[in-house]
Amino acid sequence: MPYELLVEVTRNDTVESRHFGAAVVCDYRGDVVESWGNIDSLVFPRSALKPMLAIHLVESGASEQYCLGDAELSLACSSHQGEQIHQTLVESWLNRLGLTEDYLACGAVLPEHTESAHKLLASGQTGCRIHHNCSGKHAGFLTTALHLNMPLDTYHLVDHPLQQLSLAILSDLADIDLKQHPIGIDGCGLPAPTMPLLQLGRAIARFARPVDISDYRAQAIYRLHEAIANEPLYIGGHGSVVSELNEVTKGSVLAKTGAEGIITAAIPSMGLGIALKIADGSARARSVALLAILDHLGALSDKDKHKLRAHTSPRIVNSRGLAVGEIRPAASWLPKQGSCSAELSCMLHEGGPSFHDA
Amino acid sequence: MPYELLVEVTRNDTVESRHFGAAVVCDYRGDVVESWGNIDSLVFPRSALKPMLAIHLVESGASEQYCLGDAELSLACSSHQGEQIHQTLVESWLNRLGLTEDYLACGAVLPEHTESAHKLLASGQTGCRIHHNCSGKHAGFLTTALHLNMPLDTYHLVDHPLQQLSLAILSDLADIDLKQHPIGIDGCGLPAPTMPLLQLGRAIARFARPVDISDYRAQAIYRLHEAIANEPLYIGGHGSVVSELNEVTKGSVLAKTGAEGIITAAIPSMGLGIALKIADGSARARSVALLAILDHLGALSDKDKHKLRAHTSPRIVNSRGLAVGEIRPAASWLPKQGSCSAELSCMLHEGGPSFHDA
Repeated sequence: MPYELLVEVTRNDTVESRHFGAAVVCDYRGDVVESWGNIDSLVFPRSALKPMLAIHLVESGASEQYCLGDAELSLACSSHQGEQIHQTLVESWLNRLGLTEDYLACGAVLPEHTESAHKLLASGQTGCRIHHNCSGKHAGFLTTALHLNMPLDTYHLVDHPLQQLSLAILSDLADIDLKQHPIGIDGCGLPAPTMPLLQLGRAIARFARPVDISDYRAQAIYRLHEAIANEPLYIGGHGSVVSELNEVTKGSVLAKTGAEGIITAAIPSMGLGIALKIADGSARARSVALLAILDHLGALSDKDKHKLRAHTSPRIVNSRGLAVGEIRPAASWLPKQGSCSAELSCMLHEGGPSFHDA
Repeated sequence: MPYELLVEVTRNDTVESRHFGAAVVCDYRGDVVESWGNIDSLVFPRSALKPMLAIHLVESGASEQYCLGDAELSLACSSHQGEQIHQTLVESWLNRLGLTEDYLACGAVLPEHTESAHKLLASGQTGCRIHHNCSGKHAGFLTTALHLNMPLDTYHLVDHPLQQLSLAILSDLADIDLKQHPIGIDGCGLPAPTMPLLQLGRAIARFARPVDISDYRAQAIYRLHEAIANEPLYIGGHGSVVSELNEVTKGSVLAKTGAEGIITAAIPSMGLGIALKIADGSARARSVALLAILDHLGALSDKDKHKLRAHTSPRIVNSRGLAVGEIRPAASWLPKQGSCSAELSCMLHEGGPSFHDA
């Protein structure tokens, strides 16, 4: 069995559904600290790549030329919920570039944020490209393409020089040639590369602590850390696990989701990267499993855990408003939570105590 | 591993996600014809029980007293999508009972049918109890409670005599005492019993061909078969796999979904019942797996399969309108589709050729 039971869904204390998956914790040298399931299995990291796909925006000088601040950079790394703050910022960003929504290659959709979608419908409007959770990423690609004088109308195609540059940056971080693996098409139309889960963990760990990498690339990564930590609401939105993890830990844990059950976390102070795939693609299970691993690694303080309690074991509430179950980590795959291996204790010590303060 | 790989989700021909599950095909005598995964695992059948939970409505005489037709009976068995036809019928049914929407114990929600929900929001309205996918079932319970002079305000509670009667009917069909197993609370507030998947398969098979059961119960079941076959749109809705399977096969296959990855099918002409649980609770995988089993059993003609092609391997279309993947049965768990075992060939012969004509 290439997957382990990671998350259970209960109904009145009886397990109703089960989510299987694989996960890996890597350090910045590329070594595996801990793993569950088959980490050689190929995954589509999807939107979990976005922070790494924003590197070109900074290292090319495009973000400086167009005076992008923390909010725009966080939005470039985002799967945003399409709330008003996200819509407004994508619009003003496109204005600054002298472009319109039509330049975005992603399709027109309703905001993922239910309240925002309902408000929009109630006002007689429908979905547009700006609402797409990837519109910040697309604005980032358009910015770099403009800056580097690349064609704007084909930036989403795999042969476009900016996509080739992006694949090279990802290959550098993941220590693998992504062109040797299948590349699909993402929900927003951009290339969707594949890699073994292990390589995704390695890439996230190197994003967490970019050593053995060019100085300008490392500086770009640190700039993105800073932007996300300063503007956590722009990388997700109100109530999202990504924004709340980044906000509560003050950037000590930089989490990112990807469609089809993917979630990752970079822990800069520990030099660790976590990559996790829920085999069935479920969104509800991935954050529960990630938070269990973070707790297991000692990366969350009691205060953090209290603030994140809505995400650690979310309640299931029925149509009558009654709590009838919960989504919780399975008991089997992790040692007592809050504990960690001797090897990891060393690393925590080496990494300094800063993550305990977060 | 208690589950088998049943369904794969691909992106440009590479498998991106995997759904595991268990399934059983039983005959009306209770024997297992074929199974995959651990069929002794406890499941919450959820809404897959609804056709069996409508038996009291017919056998008590309530449906006759209140002149319920095929549409109301099909709706009583339904997880409807909250389209206008469903809303209108629940309203007129409640009117006939002299009751209002407030008597429904389910909570207020938006219709599951996206277009209907958007239309409602655009007209400045919000969700109500009638839109709940279970409102037909609740109307059925209210009808029997009225007919039998039982309290109307507590009909959703497990101790209510109508819930006790329902549990007795289910126990009879499943050949198991459901009170000896955990009972949770469903999304709509009614009791949610549990049983091993095998027992669910047996219950569906006895619903398909009710032998060794009282005559009045058997007659009630045949009446429900007829109602569903005559009014398939009321048991689901436009585009739903349940309505389309029932419609395309002209009632030869009576399918029903349940929340959290449950799907069942009764095949009256073959005296077979199928019960299937996708372990992770996914809705997208259950119908793909069920259709693969139906095809494997030879229960679908080529014409049926052509009409149901949108459900057998649904395409995944991205925000740009491009087909980027599909949801398909895994290759590993079923022999060549359309084939069936020698034992089953006998049964098909015994059951007559009627299902081939459907």
